[in-house]
Amino acid sequence: METILRSATETVVISPDRPLVIIGERINPTGRKKLAAALEQGNLKLVQEEAVKQVKEGAHVLDVNVGVSGIDEPRVLKEAILMVQEVTQVPLCIDSALPKALEAGLAAYQGKALVNSVNGEERKLKDILPLVKEYGGAVVGLTMDDSGIPKKAERRLEIAEAILEAALRVGIAEEDLVIDPLAMAISADHDMAMETLKTLRLIRDKLGLNQTIGVSNISFGLPDRHPINSLFLALAAMNGLTCPIMDPTVWEMRRAALITDLLMAKDEYCMNFISAFREKHPNPQD
Amino acid sequence: METILRSATETVVISPDRPLVIIGERINPTGRKKLAAALEQGNLKLVQEEAVKQVKEGAHVLDVNVGVSGIDEPRVLKEAILMVQEVTQVPLCIDSALPKALEAGLAAYQGKALVNSVNGEERKLKDILPLVKEYGGAVVGLTMDDSGIPKKAERRLEIAEAILEAALRVGIAEEDLVIDPLAMAISADHDMAMETLKTLRLIRDKLGLNQTIGVSNISFGLPDRHPINSLFLALAAMNGLTCPIMDPTVWEMRRAALITDLLMAKDEYCMNFISAFREKHPNPQD
Repeated sequence: METILRSATETVVISPDRPLVIIGERINPTGRKKLAAALEQGNLKLVQEEAVKQVKEGAHVLDVNVGVSGIDEPRVLKEAILMVQEVTQVPLCIDSALPKALEAGLAAYQGKALVNSVNGEERKLKDILPLVKEYGGAVVGLTMDDSGIPKKAERRLEIAEAILEAALRVGIAEEDLVIDPLAMAISADHDMAMETLKTLRLIRDKLGLNQTIGVSNISFGLPDRHPINSLFLALAAMNGLTCPIMDPTVWEMRRAALITDLLMAKDEYCMNFISAFREKHPNPQD
Repeated sequence: METILRSATETVVISPDRPLVIIGERINPTGRKKLAAALEQGNLKLVQEEAVKQVKEGAHVLDVNVGVSGIDEPRVLKEAILMVQEVTQVPLCIDSALPKALEAGLAAYQGKALVNSVNGEERKLKDILPLVKEYGGAVVGLTMDDSGIPKKAERRLEIAEAILEAALRVGIAEEDLVIDPLAMAISADHDMAMETLKTLRLIRDKLGLNQTIGVSNISFGLPDRHPINSLFLALAAMNGLTCPIMDPTVWEMRRAALITDLLMAKDEYCMNFISAFREKHPNPQD
């Protein structure tokens, strides 16, 4: 199944038959004090810098989230979407908990955006799916609902199925739904990675939908997070992940995505990996 | 299925339900000039040092191969087996292309060894399986035969089945056969990793046997080999690898094995990973 995203000038195709599509996660104030402070002050320069940097380091799509408390989020998100489009060409993932902000962002966006996100809650589906349909976007569906995030893969699959039904009902095509099966911290529950991998596999095998995941959640609370995230990324891709949300400016993580493609026979002659490696190691003695 | 190996004092259980069993690969002169030179001079001090070092860095089993041309391999392998047993307690994997050397090694070994290896060739099966039976060992079966290493997973499975039949015929129990589906360089053929992962999966699902693999072959000819090998190790484990042959003295590789166990829910409370990490980073500021 192919999920197609577009900016004014570029098209990105998310598909299990293609290399991983990296969604850059850095334009998000959660856990980033400097960006949060800049957004509170109405300064979007840093947003533009993060956009340029991530695309340079291999992001194919950029997530844009400006959710800090106390700001006029619809206005700021709209402005951020406009300003990011000024400096980069990649498609955007418009990310907010507020339907009004998503709508303002969609109105300001030129192309076919990924909307982040709905989940299985009735309210969310009712507020957001019609917007996605109206603006002709694709949408991320999180496998959680009013009862929270189910531990079991089978229950997460049921929520994904319910979101798919709701999307189809409002006229969104199935290829425009991207499921996020939600990675949770393995430090809190030691079989969380296996359960999420099983969820990916079930959703791939039963629904065939593209899937995203915030890769780094898996290692919350542990030391040496990048190596853990790297291996989890590879395992997740093998089980159905097609468009990870991650920080491509961390070379170790970008490299993990490239190596995953390499091992999964999606990098003929190893050229994507080797050329990125050479860019990082211009001196052969390195 | 549980494959049990024993030294005079220790037991190691290889099983898909347990953490990965690391077979240390460093006692092997192939590609190691210093060790090859020492062996040619009849000096086995380095063999002992490599044994101690690998066990300290997490090897659960040690492969012992002394194959350099021009030496009396049965005599040297016997001596190496004796000397390694003097300095370490872990079970050994006795590794030679010569049946006579394997026999000398087995005669000198106290416990239940892993014999490395047979393959689908009639000659090999006939020469080596009776030795394994006689000395009560387990044996590695490589999925290759007189026609070489087949590219396709289905054909490699057939060879594994043929080796299993031959082993059962001489009275070796199925749990005492460990298949090596043979990782080959992805730089030579870009879907080699996927084909090997498929072989692992087929052999796991159809035969249920434990499987080993020389992990590092996959990255031959590429830069940045440890990260490639790390991700391949995780993917291989997810598909049926239970006892990788690898170099545990490379922290990045040992860490990959620990993280693989962590992600596969085989390290409750993350304690194996965290304690190895702390040993490597005694200063919290590191």
